[in-house]
Amino acid sequence: MTHSSTNTATVKQVAILGGSGAIGNALVRVYQQQRNTRVWCLSRSQPSNVGDEGFIKADVTDEASLLAAAQTLKQNPPLDTLIIATGALHSEAMQPEKSLAKLEAEAFLESIQVNTLGPALAIKHLLPLLDKGSASRCGVLSARVGSIGDNRLGGWYSYRSAKAALNMFIKTAAVELARSHKHSVLVGLHPGTVDSELSKPFQRNVAPQKLFTPSYSAECLMAVLGSKTNIDSGQVFAWDNTPIPN
Amino acid sequence: MTHSSTNTATVKQVAILGGSGAIGNALVRVYQQQRNTRVWCLSRSQPSNVGDEGFIKADVTDEASLLAAAQTLKQNPPLDTLIIATGALHSEAMQPEKSLAKLEAEAFLESIQVNTLGPALAIKHLLPLLDKGSASRCGVLSARVGSIGDNRLGGWYSYRSAKAALNMFIKTAAVELARSHKHSVLVGLHPGTVDSELSKPFQRNVAPQKLFTPSYSAECLMAVLGSKTNIDSGQVFAWDNTPIPN
Ligand SMILES: NC(=O)c1ccc[n+]([C@@H]2O[C@H](COP(=O)([O-])OP(=O)(O)OC[C@H]3O[C@@H](n4cnc5c(N)ncnc54)[C@H](OP(=O)(O)O)[C@@H]3O)[C@@H](O)[C@H]2O)c1
Ligand SMILES: NC(=O)c1ccc[n+]([C@@H]2O[C@H](COP(=O)([O-])OP(=O)(O)OC[C@H]3O[C@@H](n4cnc5c(N)ncnc54)[C@H](OP(=O)(O)O)[C@@H]3O)[C@@H](O)[C@H]2O)c1
Repeated sequence: MTHSSTNTATVKQVAILGGSGAIGNALVRVYQQQRNTRVWCLSRSQPSNVGDEGFIKADVTDEASLLAAAQTLKQNPPLDTLIIATGALHSEAMQPEKSLAKLEAEAFLESIQVNTLGPALAIKHLLPLLDKGSASRCGVLSARVGSIGDNRLGGWYSYRSAKAALNMFIKTAAVELARSHKHSVLVGLHPGTVDSELSKPFQRNVAPQKLFTPSYSAECLMAVLGSKTNIDSGQVFAWDNTPIPN
Repeated sequence: MTHSSTNTATVKQVAILGGSGAIGNALVRVYQQQRNTRVWCLSRSQPSNVGDEGFIKADVTDEASLLAAAQTLKQNPPLDTLIIATGALHSEAMQPEKSLAKLEAEAFLESIQVNTLGPALAIKHLLPLLDKGSASRCGVLSARVGSIGDNRLGGWYSYRSAKAALNMFIKTAAVELARSHKHSVLVGLHPGTVDSELSKPFQRNVAPQKLFTPSYSAECLMAVLGSKTNIDSGQVFAWDNTPIPN
């Protein structure tokens, strides 16, 4: 959004889907502070720190809106960075299950729709917009609890399953991306435990120094994503750059 | 089903959900051949090799039918072995995607419903029926292509994601099972490439000796499952007893 008079060839195009969420909006802010960067915020509602010229209405649960958003972005130079920062852990109908007995079909499908299918459709429509000529990067917000290998506590059936499915989707799309975009990268990102609406009901047992501000997490994630090269593609990385097992 | 006059305490109770499918029905047959074993077939339709006394109508996409099946089974001794053998790779509305562009929301959700949510609801209602006093075992048919770590070819987005989500569900339920059923086991199973309706459209590139009959696969899976102890719980194993990575 800065320097709109600069030659567009040197202006990096960054798109944040879910730029209205806590982490997504913090990512919008940290990329806005980068020089020669144009930040696009794709979200259901327009955040106050995003002007009309940088806002594209998009809802991951409405595929037509993703297609329309892709068409708008296509009128601009290819993307240097794409971040998909949508997701949900709880809603009116959805609570992380403490036990198998709490599993409910409707809530399971809602979690899949927001945490897996939504980002998957976003990948379908937006990943092809990554710049083919450079090490362009897409990061998708996943979660450590989506790691099968790391799962020792159990519980949270729907959210865990939905994020594991997302991680598989990321891996599969990374294989395909490598064929069309030789230098590009697609990774999952774990933001740490971040103070947001999503984590609010579950912060009780989190030590204060382990509960990050969205800004801190966003700065870490920007650095992590920026460090990735095509050999990292398909994996999931945490805010501190450690790889998360499948 | 054999020896119905034997003391029920010594008769092993085996339930096969999806006992109408190619692999499920072959499993029904191999367990029927075991001595002192009562085999229950849970499926949408009654296979010809299952008598009325061993058939329980159940559809993984109809939770009420799973609850009713559990209630019927509860009137009998606890289960020694439970196998969930349902799943689908293609249907009228669903074809494994060769590329991202082929991803369709409806087909994705259908795959999740049959391959993840269905078995998950079956686990919710039937896993508690496993015998608490012995090394009782539940095996759930997964697939090697549900392994994130093993995914080098890409494609088949929905099926891969649905099976990865299933594998996470299995891992999560195994953590919970260990608390209530100290000696029991819950694992995922990969049957190999098996000649069935499910694999028919995709057999062209399979070497003949690698395309198993349902009977061969069922015999292998019975041996693999029977060899598992609680330390194996939560993992996925192939027909040849090799562990499949997450
Ligand atoms: N916070 C944490 O501790 C934590 C930990 C691990 C992983 N994560 C992951 O990080 C990502 C961002 O989380 P956050 O903490 O920033 O949460 P958040 O503040 O609740 O933001 C969630 C974002 O997802 C969008 N969204 C939620 N439900 C939606 C729905 N049904 N349809 C369409 N869009 C929907 C929201 O859009 P609206 O603004 O329009 O509602 C918002 O942009 C998520 O993927 C989450 O799973 C977070
Ligand atoms: N065949 C292979 O090469 C292969 C390889 C890897 C993994 N697997 C897995 O092995 C399992 C069994 O496969 P199979 O080869 O035996 O396939 P199959 O012969 O097509 O049997 C599938 C079973 O799932 C049930 N089912 C399918 N769609 C359903 C739906 N919409 N609602 C309720 N039930 C449904 C079927 O019930 P009905 O009989 O009532 O239709 C049948 O019992 C599946 O989980 C599959 O993913 C198979």
